[in-house]
Amino acid sequence: MRLEHIHFKFIGKHTFARIMHHSHSLIPTSGDPMAFEAFWRKLGDKCTIVISGSDLMSYLSDMGNVCWFLVPELAEAINNLHHVVDNAVSDGRHIVIGTGSTQLYQAALYALSSPGGPEPISVVSAAPYYSQYPAETDYLRSGLYKWDGDANTFDKNNGAYIEVVNSPNNPDGTIREAVLAKVNRSAEGKLIHDLAYYWPQYTPITGAADHDIMLFTLSKCTGHAGSRIGWALVKDTEVARKMTRFIELGSIGVSKESQLRAAKILGIVSDDYPNFFEYGRRLMSERWNMLRQVIRQSGVFGLPEYPLEYCNFTGKFTNSHPGFAWLESKEDEDCEKLLRAERIMARGGRRFGADAKYARVSMLSREEIFNIFLERLSAIQGGSISNGKHLGS
Amino acid sequence: MRLEHIHFKFIGKHTFARIMHHSHSLIPTSGDPMAFEAFWRKLGDKCTIVISGSDLMSYLSDMGNVCWFLVPELAEAINNLHHVVDNAVSDGRHIVIGTGSTQLYQAALYALSSPGGPEPISVVSAAPYYSQYPAETDYLRSGLYKWDGDANTFDKNNGAYIEVVNSPNNPDGTIREAVLAKVNRSAEGKLIHDLAYYWPQYTPITGAADHDIMLFTLSKCTGHAGSRIGWALVKDTEVARKMTRFIELGSIGVSKESQLRAAKILGIVSDDYPNFFEYGRRLMSERWNMLRQVIRQSGVFGLPEYPLEYCNFTGKFTNSHPGFAWLESKEDEDCEKLLRAERIMARGGRRFGADAKYARVSMLSREEIFNIFLERLSAIQGGSISNGKHLGS
Repeated sequence: MRLEHIHFKFIGKHTFARIMHHSHSLIPTSGDPMAFEAFWRKLGDKCTIVISGSDLMSYLSDMGNVCWFLVPELAEAINNLHHVVDNAVSDGRHIVIGTGSTQLYQAALYALSSPGGPEPISVVSAAPYYSQYPAETDYLRSGLYKWDGDANTFDKNNGAYIEVVNSPNNPDGTIREAVLAKVNRSAEGKLIHDLAYYWPQYTPITGAADHDIMLFTLSKCTGHAGSRIGWALVKDTEVARKMTRFIELGSIGVSKESQLRAAKILGIVSDDYPNFFEYGRRLMSERWNMLRQVIRQSGVFGLPEYPLEYCNFTGKFTNSHPGFAWLESKEDEDCEKLLRAERIMARGGRRFGADAKYARVSMLSREEIFNIFLERLSAIQGGSISNGKHLGS
Repeated sequence: MRLEHIHFKFIGKHTFARIMHHSHSLIPTSGDPMAFEAFWRKLGDKCTIVISGSDLMSYLSDMGNVCWFLVPELAEAINNLHHVVDNAVSDGRHIVIGTGSTQLYQAALYALSSPGGPEPISVVSAAPYYSQYPAETDYLRSGLYKWDGDANTFDKNNGAYIEVVNSPNNPDGTIREAVLAKVNRSAEGKLIHDLAYYWPQYTPITGAADHDIMLFTLSKCTGHAGSRIGWALVKDTEVARKMTRFIELGSIGVSKESQLRAAKILGIVSDDYPNFFEYGRRLMSERWNMLRQVIRQSGVFGLPEYPLEYCNFTGKFTNSHPGFAWLESKEDEDCEKLLRAERIMARGGRRFGADAKYARVSMLSREEIFNIFLERLSAIQGGSISNGKHLGS
């Protein structure tokens, strides 16, 4: 069985054929979260913002707040959203805003390690870990912190450390807990929880997370990656103050236009409850069903299975439908290479501290791209690779 | 002679008295560039931008550009503006966009020092230097670069260095050239030109600057500090690529909302030529005249004098009217303390690598704040300090 019927359902035969005709190049599936664009387009003017020439000129936003550059409307919208979804405790927490959660990850490292000692503190995360953590930790060769790889193989006797817990985990979608602090929480261990994907479209919401530092980002929550808005919920005032200081020194705050727009977008997500997340959940569920069907048919790849859990938000038992698929090649030693031969760009397992037989592909691309990805993937058959020439024939 | 007549000219007696009544606190003069807000307000809808919910969602902007997250409309607006003002050569240069020029300063340090050697490269700037350079250079204790103070006292035999040339200089408004490369340009010396204030409202435009790395920022050009938009004009492709990589690792790009708005704002500045800069020049000139009058009358302070030069942009001979006043206390050893006693918040000379008898105050504050600053400054008299109670009496 071929996949044409699936494509046609979404974009029609002629459109699809035209796209394929023009795309001899690699299909990038590297994480640009365009899947939800159609939802926002349908809203029309409801989510439009208007900014006049004299608005938002000052550096300052709220001098009474630890995070003095945080626009109050955004702080309120973030709080409301966490109340609606109940995925994290935000009451009594400091909100620190960042240029994406990327800047906040580094702000958290700074806050937990400065002023620093004679040796940089070790930063670890359980493999497979987000492929950007190593580079984001080490590119400035900081004397405060250094990347130390897989948390599972880290020797706690080495002293102080920061463990990054990414849950649901990028790349493999698993629900994570701290590895090093599991049995006996060490006084020397500090935690950063990267909860970018802990939203109802990706995973069952099983409770309100309540950790010292929790990172979120608009990119993954609503798909607005171009706005570069992330936020951290922070328990300790001194940590929040240091994170704020980091962002002050790095960029003197965060775009107010983006903050204002994020406030509008998150406000609509909360007010229009549960429409956006329902839309996202259905879309992700459909895509995962299609992917699993292709995978079953080809027999070449493996995919993680996720447990059925009760989601407090939807009131239903549901699986995870992560933003990335973590493909395991059953026959080939190099999954990235195998995919590339069929013009699918993926990120190989080694980048995530894992084996090369794994590779990560995005489940959040635009519909046309996702369909081409499925089509090309379906052309990879056990033993030999078909040349995809059946298309259009 | 008191200053009441100046205040009244701008805001009226009652408004001023009400403000003074409510402001027992310190007047901050630390650099929020609100002086031009009135200009933008007068434009009404002409500079308004409208962004719908589905706009600007992708991380990507222009994959054909080295700086792949730079919005093409902004690149065009920046180029046009430099053509109109002719303050810098932009043709054939790469434009790298940043979250303020603060992020670009660090991107430039990274580009000029990575992958790095056994020792961090020295970063220097002639004193008095911008007070944030030391902290922005050292807060992460990078192994790539380290702050090494005043360029005038740096020993070139120490090897490789990066000299930051800030012209017109913050805090003292002087026109600067590289100190270390003056006679014989060392192959080991690299330059960053921070030209944030090289615009016609502040200083005569005497030629199109043409250096390896030139930094500009919307904050000082048009007053839109809240947008956090800076740009670099970069000669070398590899340097531009590394700067882009730094911003990718630090924040995966720059707010698209801010970029789009900056494109609109800079477009109006170019199209409406020379209205904005004329407005700014007159305003700065008036403020400097008032400040010099107060300074002359009090006899307590000194101020730098600036040479009359021909400005290519206005076609007139004009002085500099810098964004900051660099006050020298003639009688007191601690200028910051002297000002603080009269409830004026200033940044003391030590922070700039200079003597404590100097202090920096902003010339770009909102009109009400600037007027209160002048009023309080005029209360500081040689030998003794009046208590300012004459106000309202």
